[in-house]
Amino acid sequence: MKLITFECRGHNSIGKVVDNQVIDLPASDAALPRTMRELLQAGPVALERVRALKLENSVSWPLADVRLQAPVPNPEKFLAIGMNYTKHKQEALDAGMQVPNTQIWFNKQVSCVNGPFDPVHLPRASDKVDYEAELGVIIGRRCRHVSVADAPSVVAGYVVINDVSVRDWQMASPTMTLGKSFNTHGPFGPWIVTADEVPDPHNLNMRMLVNGEVRQEVNTGELIYNIWEQIAHLSTVMTLEPGDVLATGTPSGVGVALKPPQFRKLGDVMRVEIDGIGHIENVVVAEPA
Amino acid sequence: MKLITFECRGHNSIGKVVDNQVIDLPASDAALPRTMRELLQAGPVALERVRALKLENSVSWPLADVRLQAPVPNPEKFLAIGMNYTKHKQEALDAGMQVPNTQIWFNKQVSCVNGPFDPVHLPRASDKVDYEAELGVIIGRRCRHVSVADAPSVVAGYVVINDVSVRDWQMASPTMTLGKSFNTHGPFGPWIVTADEVPDPHNLNMRMLVNGEVRQEVNTGELIYNIWEQIAHLSTVMTLEPGDVLATGTPSGVGVALKPPQFRKLGDVMRVEIDGIGHIENVVVAEPA
Repeated sequence: MKLITFECRGHNSIGKVVDNQVIDLPASDAALPRTMRELLQAGPVALERVRALKLENSVSWPLADVRLQAPVPNPEKFLAIGMNYTKHKQEALDAGMQVPNTQIWFNKQVSCVNGPFDPVHLPRASDKVDYEAELGVIIGRRCRHVSVADAPSVVAGYVVINDVSVRDWQMASPTMTLGKSFNTHGPFGPWIVTADEVPDPHNLNMRMLVNGEVRQEVNTGELIYNIWEQIAHLSTVMTLEPGDVLATGTPSGVGVALKPPQFRKLGDVMRVEIDGIGHIENVVVAEPA
Repeated sequence: MKLITFECRGHNSIGKVVDNQVIDLPASDAALPRTMRELLQAGPVALERVRALKLENSVSWPLADVRLQAPVPNPEKFLAIGMNYTKHKQEALDAGMQVPNTQIWFNKQVSCVNGPFDPVHLPRASDKVDYEAELGVIIGRRCRHVSVADAPSVVAGYVVINDVSVRDWQMASPTMTLGKSFNTHGPFGPWIVTADEVPDPHNLNMRMLVNGEVRQEVNTGELIYNIWEQIAHLSTVMTLEPGDVLATGTPSGVGVALKPPQFRKLGDVMRVEIDGIGHIENVVVAEPA
């Protein structure tokens, strides 16, 4: 299934995309909750009710008439791993960054979550805005101390993420987090493709296009720490919750590693595509006054 | 005012502490919300209604009969600044850490929030658990691009925090965040002392006691980046929300900097006191199986 959070005629809801139509879930089945986090918290029984909904006996809208929001607009946690593709790690080493041999996690503040087709700000505080194409994982159930073998069972599904990064702020502190957390710098979507429809998340072709030109291109099989290892590592430390978002790493080809470095300018269009998941596309605009 | 989140006889609510009694806010005034984030979001008018509540015409409980939870049990953001007292920064430099000349922010995951008197886990994954006494700031209104001069106006009040840290996990990654985010490792409280009752947050005596012995002692006037500079810096990047928690830094005297380093053992009692705010006290227990 493709699960979305959307707005239509001033109405916010969650839905399922079928044949370019959006089935409004709570409008079609009053037993279903109104937000994605609640739906995921409700678990397999609720998801079976969603699965059972057919276009012919549901409330639906044309996909073209809705505004897609991030599928989880308000995750409890939004975590991202750094230096998780070999060539990108080499880019970072070449740029003089320290890269230890462990999983390097940082937060994107949840306040930076943005819609899959919404504008991204060139902030007043920097002109060093860069892109990072990433496969995103949405956690499907509360869990702790998950083994690598059990990790697939806690995944609700997958999304496309652009881990927009402000490089001067990121490099200013070894913790990186502020440079990863400017408002609007966490667009993801366009929907959650549920895990049952992604036979192998470690064999997906992903690319980043800037103004139509391919800048990053990789197969997710090249991840250094794979998704299951990421979930095992994180859940050693903390409880993961339904709706938590994990950005699994970006490949080589980021703008800051080009010679000379290139950053985003007003009007640039950043598009991330992952075959079998979908794409997101965000235009760079000035931060509003 | 001293604002709390509490549990009493299976009932969760928010309250105001007056003379060792807890006034239950929504039970006493049905116009008041049931959670601290909602109360802070409701703004000055709601806080005036809280201020007007008197013991004689309110629903109240003895303070001794309630279990205090973290005053904001579910903040949107829980951010902490590192190396923000001169002598502690020197400790870190001596330990071989990189300390750039900027504000170093990391996240404590909100899933690590813990009550002011609740046990703290010695996790299965490490025996390198350490304490960090910190003054905490609770944001009172949604804000962005706050100047240093305007920063006091966005603060709801102050709390006592123990930024419990797992040193081997913290040091393993320059981003620090996983070592700061084990479940139960973010106790704070015991209440929010509203800003009007804290004439100068940069002149508070704070100390950490372990099993009754003073380990850290400082006046918050010794902060390198003061609270207003912290808010200005963060809000350059992101929107701050009512209930967001900022841990403003810890002074020298942490266990990892002792020679030889000392870490917490089962049964150790960690107590943080800040004059004019209150104290929190947490015992170290084994992580449950």
